[in-house]
Amino acid sequence: MKVIVNISLKEGVLDPEGQAIKTSLSNLGFENLNDVRTGKQIILNFVNLEENEAVLEAKKMCEDLLVNSVIEKYKINILRN
Amino acid sequence: MKVIVNISLKEGVLDPEGQAIKTSLSNLGFENLNDVRTGKQIILNFVNLEENEAVLEAKKMCEDLLVNSVIEKYKINILRN
Repeated sequence: MKVIVNISLKEGVLDPEGQAIKTSLSNLGFENLNDVRTGKQIILNFVNLEENEAVLEAKKMCEDLLVNSVIEKYKINILRN
Repeated sequence: MKVIVNISLKEGVLDPEGQAIKTSLSNLGFENLNDVRTGKQIILNFVNLEENEAVLEAKKMCEDLLVNSVIEKYKINILRN
């Protein structure tokens, strides 16, 4: 079963990558952008775990390794298909 | 209006970052993982555009700049909240 972790910078934390993308897009003529933010996506493919166990395990992974909670926030979603 | 672009590596393309994450998690005792894949998320905040216009604009941005279509695929979602 697949669990998707979306990690993004907290509000108020500067996002230089997003700023660079915005500038590049603007140079290409895309003028309708107010703001661009970036984030990471990690897709965890679990074996032998029920849905709720997988979510708990993913949460622990975020807290132990994947997320820098000083500047980042995360959201966990289950991928069903 | 916010549009989320999720960019990930195509199936079959090696994902060294995902492999590194899997190894690190495994070293921390997380043993229930079959596979880890990574991706990027870009949140585009549009002004003065309707929903369908924003999606079209985002698609053009992906093709012109954001996505390397040789090795990456993308998905566009509208963020409603």
